[in-house]
Amino acid sequence: MTSAAFLEDFHHVATIGATPDNGVDRQAATPEDAQTRHWFAGWVREAGWELRVDGIGNMFGLLEWTPGAPYVLIGSHLDSQPLGGRFDGAYGVVAALHAARRLDAEVAEGGAAQRFNLAVVNWFNEEGGRFAPSIMGSSVFAGLLQREQMLDVADLQGITVREALDGIGYLGTSDGPEAAGYAEIHIEQGRILEREGISIGLVDSSWYTQKLDIEVLGEQSHTGATAMADRHDALVAASKIILMVHDVTAEFAEEALVSSVGQLTLEPNSPIVVARRVHLVADLRSGDPDIVKAARAKLIEDIDALAREHDIKVNVKDFDIRPIRRFPEGGLQLADKVAANLGLSARRIQTMAGHDSVAMNTVAPSVMLFIPSVDGVSHCEREFSTDEDMVAGVDMLTGVARELVAGALADASPEPAAALA
Amino acid sequence: MTSAAFLEDFHHVATIGATPDNGVDRQAATPEDAQTRHWFAGWVREAGWELRVDGIGNMFGLLEWTPGAPYVLIGSHLDSQPLGGRFDGAYGVVAALHAARRLDAEVAEGGAAQRFNLAVVNWFNEEGGRFAPSIMGSSVFAGLLQREQMLDVADLQGITVREALDGIGYLGTSDGPEAAGYAEIHIEQGRILEREGISIGLVDSSWYTQKLDIEVLGEQSHTGATAMADRHDALVAASKIILMVHDVTAEFAEEALVSSVGQLTLEPNSPIVVARRVHLVADLRSGDPDIVKAARAKLIEDIDALAREHDIKVNVKDFDIRPIRRFPEGGLQLADKVAANLGLSARRIQTMAGHDSVAMNTVAPSVMLFIPSVDGVSHCEREFSTDEDMVAGVDMLTGVARELVAGALADASPEPAAALA
Repeated sequence: MTSAAFLEDFHHVATIGATPDNGVDRQAATPEDAQTRHWFAGWVREAGWELRVDGIGNMFGLLEWTPGAPYVLIGSHLDSQPLGGRFDGAYGVVAALHAARRLDAEVAEGGAAQRFNLAVVNWFNEEGGRFAPSIMGSSVFAGLLQREQMLDVADLQGITVREALDGIGYLGTSDGPEAAGYAEIHIEQGRILEREGISIGLVDSSWYTQKLDIEVLGEQSHTGATAMADRHDALVAASKIILMVHDVTAEFAEEALVSSVGQLTLEPNSPIVVARRVHLVADLRSGDPDIVKAARAKLIEDIDALAREHDIKVNVKDFDIRPIRRFPEGGLQLADKVAANLGLSARRIQTMAGHDSVAMNTVAPSVMLFIPSVDGVSHCEREFSTDEDMVAGVDMLTGVARELVAGALADASPEPAAALA
Repeated sequence: MTSAAFLEDFHHVATIGATPDNGVDRQAATPEDAQTRHWFAGWVREAGWELRVDGIGNMFGLLEWTPGAPYVLIGSHLDSQPLGGRFDGAYGVVAALHAARRLDAEVAEGGAAQRFNLAVVNWFNEEGGRFAPSIMGSSVFAGLLQREQMLDVADLQGITVREALDGIGYLGTSDGPEAAGYAEIHIEQGRILEREGISIGLVDSSWYTQKLDIEVLGEQSHTGATAMADRHDALVAASKIILMVHDVTAEFAEEALVSSVGQLTLEPNSPIVVARRVHLVADLRSGDPDIVKAARAKLIEDIDALAREHDIKVNVKDFDIRPIRRFPEGGLQLADKVAANLGLSARRIQTMAGHDSVAMNTVAPSVMLFIPSVDGVSHCEREFSTDEDMVAGVDMLTGVARELVAGALADASPEPAAALA
């Protein structure tokens, strides 16, 4: 019930899959992910709540105060990037467990029936490092992705989501609860709150993002016996594409566009063979969809010219296009009021990164909250937020969940799913 | 005994580990490599010769005509690059089997004792695509590499040479024969013979080669939530290094230097994570050692400047340095005479690629022969030499082996091993 209990739980979860430099490695449906799941399940059962696991591995702890009423969901994800940070996702799940326990005690003391019930959720595979796309579990829950199709997605070793979830015992058969609202708290993964000394970010919208699947096809040859002029080196061409993807950001205002190549596979990957094929994934993000579209157009044009110049083939495919999503104004005003009552400074903010809340916002009015990230770093072992900021965030989430359960956003419409491209 | 029998055997071996586009995939100590080994063993036994396998997987078929005398070895390697060509290595082994069978028949008919005995050899892991370094089996035989150390070399999956050889049943216990001389025939893997319309290349020396092991250490971060200015992207820096390794050849005369990066590993290799670490291997080769040394010095300097500019760490280590090796003048003259007697055109030539003969030449006078490669391509499925050129090469190898067995190079000194850096 105290912030000490929350901090103890948070720092315990950080020991699961811990890495030498204070990070965690708990990719979706690995043994380390399973360990946090066992911990979550045990916590929910000990609290006396009902545990459900659905057919894509999402876990729900249900607090049914008003039989038959829909549920407000609060939570995030316990999976991590490879060598990821210990705050991303896990903070939101542990915060939600403690917020729910506080509200459970309040309801028990007050005895009053609530308009909605409450559920704490641990979404499957938010990170997408092992199985693409990311935000998988909440997107299936929201009907944005097809469950059967996602169960067939394979990792780089050929293991499918179905096999991996079944292997750790978390391919459930339950339906998830009916959602009346959603709230999530997360680290900012940027430095705006830290720079301005503000405690809580109220997320009003998400960035426009898209990925490019790029296949570079050269010709395999002997590094030690092929004249430079006779080569069609897929890795040399791919290197130029990686730099194009990086440099295209300079065509736009500072911080208006971020881009990167984070995944690359080289074939045959032998020290004395000129590469035949390079497969890479580029990621483009901006608050302005037109900027992403302009950057993509320039890349396609430059890549075409490069392919001609190198006499190789480059196949480029668009995928994982995510339009700008707006969170409901009512939720922003509600959260602003909760922060004021708690004496916490707050500001509206955009999210560059995707979150489970973006998917949930298409089916239920959702509130997305940030706490500050030291140095803005994320998806790495150096990721850090202070205990003080985390504890303030638990208070904030508790306050927002209390309002949602009481029906504060019951009349707000979710962002229509049709807005997804 | 006929060229038809040779061609039948050659084209049969090309079916083992065959790939859709007429190549082969028979990396060292894989099941496909094992199949060619079974074939070699069966052929040797059927010919009535003794089969030996040594402690690094080299296979010898022994023809003992003069009890107690040392052996002239002839052969090459049956392993291939991943998606490699069907000529590289395999041609030399099949040619050697047929050359040995012809000489065996001649000895049987003539009844004369020979100065030396003859052995056909299939060297282990010439290619080095799975286990580094390349030219492993012959280098251990020649005492240039330590057997125990090589048995501990692991592939990218962590399987050691010892485990892999044991797994296919070719971790032998025999000693190899004592070598009095060596001859090998191979495809050129370049276009000089084809361009000049010459049938046989007489290799007088090998190029100077070295590798650079390059580790690029950036900082892992979230692609979707880290400002471009805050990133230390290991893959962007690595891409610039790959282009430096490519572009450094333009600093020297055309075809004086070849260079490439053929192996690259990216960590964590997730589409939405800025890379933490890239490991790559660069390969530099020239007929002139000073050119390789100058290129290396320029790369080290440019990489240092790049590391400072990107505020990342780059570790560069030299390895696998191979000095220029010269084949004995007596062998070149002998081979020139054999070609003239057969009516085959011949010229002296350098080899850019490494070969088992380069290692063998440090312990026994060696003769290295080339036949033409169509378009000069190699280490790829498109590798091609004509039946006619292959058959002429078998005649050539037979003639050279006949002279070596008779003692033609008995007084030549091998290239001293001390010349290896």
